[in-house]
Amino acid sequence: MNDLHRWFIKQKKGGIELLRRLVQEASTQTNEATAQALIIEKCRQLQLELDIWEPEIEQLKKHPYFVSARTSFRHSPNVVAVWKGTGGGRSLILNSHIDVVPEGDVTQWAADPYSGKVEDGKLYGRGASDMKGGTVALLLAIEALQALGIRLKGDVIFQSVIEEESGGAGTLAAILRGYRADGAIIPEPTDMKLFPKQQGSLWFRITVRGKSAHGGTRYEGVSAIEKAWTVVRCLQQLETKRNERIDDPLYAHVPIPIPINIGTIRGGTWPSSVPDCVVLEGRMGVAPNETIEQAKQEMKEALCALGEQDAWLQSNIELEWFGAQWLPSSLEVTHPLLQTMTKAYRQVKGEDPIIEAAPWGTDGGLLTQVGAIPTIVFGPGTTAVAHYPNEYIDIDRVLEAAEMIAYAMIDWCGVAER
Amino acid sequence: MNDLHRWFIKQKKGGIELLRRLVQEASTQTNEATAQALIIEKCRQLQLELDIWEPEIEQLKKHPYFVSARTSFRHSPNVVAVWKGTGGGRSLILNSHIDVVPEGDVTQWAADPYSGKVEDGKLYGRGASDMKGGTVALLLAIEALQALGIRLKGDVIFQSVIEEESGGAGTLAAILRGYRADGAIIPEPTDMKLFPKQQGSLWFRITVRGKSAHGGTRYEGVSAIEKAWTVVRCLQQLETKRNERIDDPLYAHVPIPIPINIGTIRGGTWPSSVPDCVVLEGRMGVAPNETIEQAKQEMKEALCALGEQDAWLQSNIELEWFGAQWLPSSLEVTHPLLQTMTKAYRQVKGEDPIIEAAPWGTDGGLLTQVGAIPTIVFGPGTTAVAHYPNEYIDIDRVLEAAEMIAYAMIDWCGVAER
Repeated sequence: MNDLHRWFIKQKKGGIELLRRLVQEASTQTNEATAQALIIEKCRQLQLELDIWEPEIEQLKKHPYFVSARTSFRHSPNVVAVWKGTGGGRSLILNSHIDVVPEGDVTQWAADPYSGKVEDGKLYGRGASDMKGGTVALLLAIEALQALGIRLKGDVIFQSVIEEESGGAGTLAAILRGYRADGAIIPEPTDMKLFPKQQGSLWFRITVRGKSAHGGTRYEGVSAIEKAWTVVRCLQQLETKRNERIDDPLYAHVPIPIPINIGTIRGGTWPSSVPDCVVLEGRMGVAPNETIEQAKQEMKEALCALGEQDAWLQSNIELEWFGAQWLPSSLEVTHPLLQTMTKAYRQVKGEDPIIEAAPWGTDGGLLTQVGAIPTIVFGPGTTAVAHYPNEYIDIDRVLEAAEMIAYAMIDWCGVAER
Repeated sequence: MNDLHRWFIKQKKGGIELLRRLVQEASTQTNEATAQALIIEKCRQLQLELDIWEPEIEQLKKHPYFVSARTSFRHSPNVVAVWKGTGGGRSLILNSHIDVVPEGDVTQWAADPYSGKVEDGKLYGRGASDMKGGTVALLLAIEALQALGIRLKGDVIFQSVIEEESGGAGTLAAILRGYRADGAIIPEPTDMKLFPKQQGSLWFRITVRGKSAHGGTRYEGVSAIEKAWTVVRCLQQLETKRNERIDDPLYAHVPIPIPINIGTIRGGTWPSSVPDCVVLEGRMGVAPNETIEQAKQEMKEALCALGEQDAWLQSNIELEWFGAQWLPSSLEVTHPLLQTMTKAYRQVKGEDPIIEAAPWGTDGGLLTQVGAIPTIVFGPGTTAVAHYPNEYIDIDRVLEAAEMIAYAMIDWCGVAER
């Protein structure tokens, strides 16, 4: 057993403690500061060069890929912490997001959604997998190399950004602030798979209008709920059509490569009235090899075609794009970064990693398309429980991923002469 | 042209003014007091014996037919005003409700929903048809007889109650306070048709649970929106089945005699998450010849049967009955009250009235089943615009209905010797 592995075994308790405290800070949108404070303290202990700032919305607004419903990022700090190399090596961004999605229906959680409790080798709480376990893996990787006296040639740029779940304003801000590197790793919850290809995604809002009437003479009205279902079926057909054409082998084991998810539905004002308005909001996947604009156009055309079959819908549907947007991205399978990560995985596990295309978007799209930074997504979290009640992460995987990332850093950035 | 008719022509302007002011008081649930103040003043001018009280919720709660989401009726007064007869004649309740439903989607109204504006012989505003036009018709009928020096033998009991739109607590309170009569007329908006049969109705809430997951891997979850649609289709089939068995000739011209209307839908919390909970609220019609309990049982059975076809739904649907409930009721077509009203109609219009079964519930169910008071629903409002944007009432109909009710009062209560 080598020194690196031994270090991770010794530090397991410390790693769990850091993750537990991080999960207990409920860092939903606008509430990121206290979780970031824990990150900042850890980076300070690691003697990294800290850069802490609140993204400036006026500057971000000028960028075509900025989307956010927020009007200010005050009290929502971004954190970047640099471990400077000695020079002459490839640089590496280690990107993670501090924000988590809401807990959803609290009655479906067995314990408090931010408990951080540990049971049977798992740590529970919203954000454990998506993606605080990944954040901790990054910090432990840096700590491990430092503890073993290893200095790297290339810079390591650790990032803990806001707003990943809502469109990427945090990572975009870091790119616009000037942070670049020869490669990037994002430990989103991939079940330890390597994702060299990123799905993009868009948030849509579809408003369907009806005609109100008394519920007792409902035939005098037009139910926006019934009309909304016609729209839902149309989206189901669109999803089927878009996925039938996906033939990328990296998606071979993914049931629905680029899904269309309807996340919320709201309509009607009174039980005794025919509902005159229903609003659907959801998320549309964008394939790695298509543009955001192509995906938008296809949905628009599907709804127009629906209008041709249903006269009412022709003038009573509105489509908008709002909120979060993730750019797709693609790394060729021969890329050195993928080779580095594959070798690091083999070094720790003794077997080859599974390489697939990501079922969801990440800030990797921004890093790739705006920063021109080759990016791989790989992390210890469990995909199936992200955004789900009773989210958890396997603690052993956190340490395994940390060890793999440490090896990747050695290989990518190069080790300085003592 | 006789004296009564001449009086109505002369008083048209005053009638419009009273209705306009009444409509301009937005008397939605809990906001009834200012509209009632106008009623009280008019009754005072008519020298009626006023009884004004706030229904007592602890007393009402004891009654099996009390349903209300409210915890208090403070500041929501009921008004009863009696025009005592000289004795020896049949008594008549003239029942109306002061409360109105919400205005719905304001963007669908051409003017302010409480404008009371008059245009082309119509008066506009929420409540004009349902049912302030009816209330004004009752008051004008009393005023007309008084103006012509006519004294009646039987008592006339005018009522302006709260909560008709939300389950009948106002009329129930009046019945429990002791108000009885040999007959009752309720001028809800019937397009001048006579309704001797009342539909009942119930408010239901159906909660459908799903399983949350990330929208990018939506196949790992169960969409409560998709499952809710299975429930909606089940309710559509139930409605078809229940209406196929309606063979009452009074329903011959009604497209859907006892509809099931889904009024509101709410579900999901985040566009990027599979929705784990959807709540449907709506109104179920109850036929005049069935009980509330039978209707409830039939819906329960339909949802259980659905559970047998869909394993997920078997343990993930909840059905509740809440809020408003209207009892059905039925008056045989040979009843003297119907004959009185028919004669009164003929006297004014010179032709027979249309006699049908009501497409919606009214407080007539309570008057009939709790008060044992034979009840007819007949009024000047336009059914199709009740609960609808741009609600209005035809002013000439208000006066026509008032004249008919005046004749009905003469015939039913009898005229005292001078």
